[in-house]
Amino acid sequence: MENIDYEAIHEELFIMLDQHMIKELRLTLAEMNEYDISEFLGELWEEDQTRMGMVYRLLPKEIAADVFANLEVEEQETIINSVTDTELAAIVEELQVDDAVDMMEELPANVVKRVMRSANPSTRALINQYLKYPENSAGSIMTAEFIDLKKYMNVRESLARIRKIGEDRETIYVCYVTSAKRRLEGVVTVKDLLLADDETIIEDIMDTNVIFAKTTDDQEEVTEQFSNYDLIAIPVVDKEGCLVGIVTVDDVIDVMEQEATEDIEKMAGITPSVKPYSRTSVFDIWKNRIPWLMFLMLSATFTGMVMTHFEDALAAQVVLAAFIPMLMGTGGNSGSQASTAVIRSLSLGDIEPSDVLEVIWKEIRVAVLCGISLACINFVKMLVVDKILLHNSDVTIIVAATVSLTIVFVVMFAKAVGSTLPIIAEKIGVDPAVMASPLISTITDTVSLIIYFNIARVFLHF
Amino acid sequence: MENIDYEAIHEELFIMLDQHMIKELRLTLAEMNEYDISEFLGELWEEDQTRMGMVYRLLPKEIAADVFANLEVEEQETIINSVTDTELAAIVEELQVDDAVDMMEELPANVVKRVMRSANPSTRALINQYLKYPENSAGSIMTAEFIDLKKYMNVRESLARIRKIGEDRETIYVCYVTSAKRRLEGVVTVKDLLLADDETIIEDIMDTNVIFAKTTDDQEEVTEQFSNYDLIAIPVVDKEGCLVGIVTVDDVIDVMEQEATEDIEKMAGITPSVKPYSRTSVFDIWKNRIPWLMFLMLSATFTGMVMTHFEDALAAQVVLAAFIPMLMGTGGNSGSQASTAVIRSLSLGDIEPSDVLEVIWKEIRVAVLCGISLACINFVKMLVVDKILLHNSDVTIIVAATVSLTIVFVVMFAKAVGSTLPIIAEKIGVDPAVMASPLISTITDTVSLIIYFNIARVFLHF
Repeated sequence: MENIDYEAIHEELFIMLDQHMIKELRLTLAEMNEYDISEFLGELWEEDQTRMGMVYRLLPKEIAADVFANLEVEEQETIINSVTDTELAAIVEELQVDDAVDMMEELPANVVKRVMRSANPSTRALINQYLKYPENSAGSIMTAEFIDLKKYMNVRESLARIRKIGEDRETIYVCYVTSAKRRLEGVVTVKDLLLADDETIIEDIMDTNVIFAKTTDDQEEVTEQFSNYDLIAIPVVDKEGCLVGIVTVDDVIDVMEQEATEDIEKMAGITPSVKPYSRTSVFDIWKNRIPWLMFLMLSATFTGMVMTHFEDALAAQVVLAAFIPMLMGTGGNSGSQASTAVIRSLSLGDIEPSDVLEVIWKEIRVAVLCGISLACINFVKMLVVDKILLHNSDVTIIVAATVSLTIVFVVMFAKAVGSTLPIIAEKIGVDPAVMASPLISTITDTVSLIIYFNIARVFLHF
Repeated sequence: MENIDYEAIHEELFIMLDQHMIKELRLTLAEMNEYDISEFLGELWEEDQTRMGMVYRLLPKEIAADVFANLEVEEQETIINSVTDTELAAIVEELQVDDAVDMMEELPANVVKRVMRSANPSTRALINQYLKYPENSAGSIMTAEFIDLKKYMNVRESLARIRKIGEDRETIYVCYVTSAKRRLEGVVTVKDLLLADDETIIEDIMDTNVIFAKTTDDQEEVTEQFSNYDLIAIPVVDKEGCLVGIVTVDDVIDVMEQEATEDIEKMAGITPSVKPYSRTSVFDIWKNRIPWLMFLMLSATFTGMVMTHFEDALAAQVVLAAFIPMLMGTGGNSGSQASTAVIRSLSLGDIEPSDVLEVIWKEIRVAVLCGISLACINFVKMLVVDKILLHNSDVTIIVAATVSLTIVFVVMFAKAVGSTLPIIAEKIGVDPAVMASPLISTITDTVSLIIYFNIARVFLHF
């Protein structure tokens, strides 16, 4: 068994297309996986949007909706613009509600209007209801296609119901037991059903200790529950405790990737965007990056003020300037190590804002170890490399001691600030990821300089 | 329906324990979820390891192994040291192979020996085989507990087999069809089985277009396949194409969290560790952080050399020094934005190393936009804030122009380097995450200074 060579297949598909071998194209596509077809359509889209719309219409009806759901929004728009209203209605009806909602949130308003007009009234109502859930909430990522059972049913009846309605459900492996008023009462897996006798009553095998989410829960909490409890789906209930949808594990995997990307982007001072990098325009990338760059550049006014304040000292001891980049770099790196560790631990639920004192105490001890080891190496390095090897006669033992002592304090300050700020952010409801290297570096830059010049003043008497 | 208040339950459990209400304790625990029990045992472990070992032995046998698998390695060690050899053998037999292997990889050697001695020969052989797979490979995270079917079986026989062996399998929802020589021939889901007639032959409904992994594949590739193809399990085959295990979606979720944490840590210059932050000792944190700090501190020798080289210029135009921190900060931030975007896109498979020219071209255009906007704002800011508001008479139009022009070049250089280095790393087989902000900043620091002093030399004639 060999993994399939998709590049070869894509090439073949392009040849069929160029030679108008429509029948072969249709047959080959029908054999392919939804994801691979959507990858092919994405490639085609970049070359020729019209042909892409045409190829989409060759797909067998059963897989067309799944392929559609896998496409990027711009590609979906191309297809929507190339089909008739009747065809559009068919696509919308076949889509899972969560996929339809994802798409609606990003399509331009006039296209949304046309899609909504072509959907049938019940679908339209469902989409509208979902669109009301806050972004990134459990409600916004759930789907309505689940299997519900009643507690008085027996296993045979339940399996029959699964066979009857299971075809188009997002998962059939976890079934939810609801009351007449749709309140969630328990959960039963297909494994439970298969391992039980046909006549067993659901009430006797269902698990009433259900892990569930509320529609308003943040999607990050939902992913945490999946990772803690090894779920393949989680039921979502509304304020009244009624079951309104489920979130399945495949959607959670996408959410996890998206959340990790967002955290990483925020930590690098980039405004997160939903589009992949390769599809984001130069102008949009600029828009996502310039705010932090601008803010950080302007806040460096403070470091400039400190430098100007100590101008005379600098003019008298120009050798001091040579070590400023190293001190600021070491401070920034120490601080961002601490903030990164804390931000990630907060987001994985390993530490809570209430652990703040413990975390600071730990970071201070780490900082003492790091600071002293860096200072020792630096002291030796300045005397051996800078003084002897590079013949810099301005580097004296006093200068080396000044710089090395500064390192100890700078690292301690950086680690303390780096670990505290993300926790404070979490406490006041700001995303801790914002308190990452760029901001921490800017703060430690200014303070490093103040520490440096004050120690220098004492040691070098100016 | 209300979510359970675990803090209240933990408190109750502690009271029962203090008052030796063993029977109540046993009953309450039996009602709880494996994950919640392991959380409680973790809390107890921090207070009193002996009591934790005792409470573990109160757990019903069916859930004891699952609870054990959820514990941290130090906690597992406590339990291993508190049970008899017979009890230990029972735990090991009940554990999924992948969980047992995870544990073995981290336990001290003498404990591993005792565990291996108490396991029965076939389990021992299996664990030994798994321990041979490279770390972070599909082989190292797979489990051997899957359901295999033959293609000549019919649906009724298959369901009977699932009922018979399904109890202790990691997932029953995807079954794998293998030949007499254990070669993987197809895959069939329980959904397929339930929706088909009892007499249908497996060969007729199995999917032969199987997405699979090889034992030596990197776990990151495996997670990518889950996210692309919405799988709940993936079969893992050896060199001969024989099915040796499966990786299930719950393990993939853990791997994804771990990989994201590792990427984030590497990007901040921290050596990744498997232990959560709250459980890592101060000394270990120091060990994980000091190598990069040391390396980066020492490489700042270059910035020092540049500064020393331009010492005379600096002495003559001390005002130039005031803007060095801002220039280095802006360069570092611009570079780390680019490297972060590229590192994340590479790891999500959005861009490939072969896209290097496209990426550089995009980043250069972004850099021109960012550089020019930052330079304009900086020019105005220096003349209004630094010159007029802060009365710094050394800031002339020429100085402001020097600094602003430097910004344009620094941002361009930083974005070009930041986007190129991760791609080169990927090409030569180094983890791109290493090419993140700390390293990029150190490189741009040195180059920024060189650009700055050279532009200043031309504009200010020294």
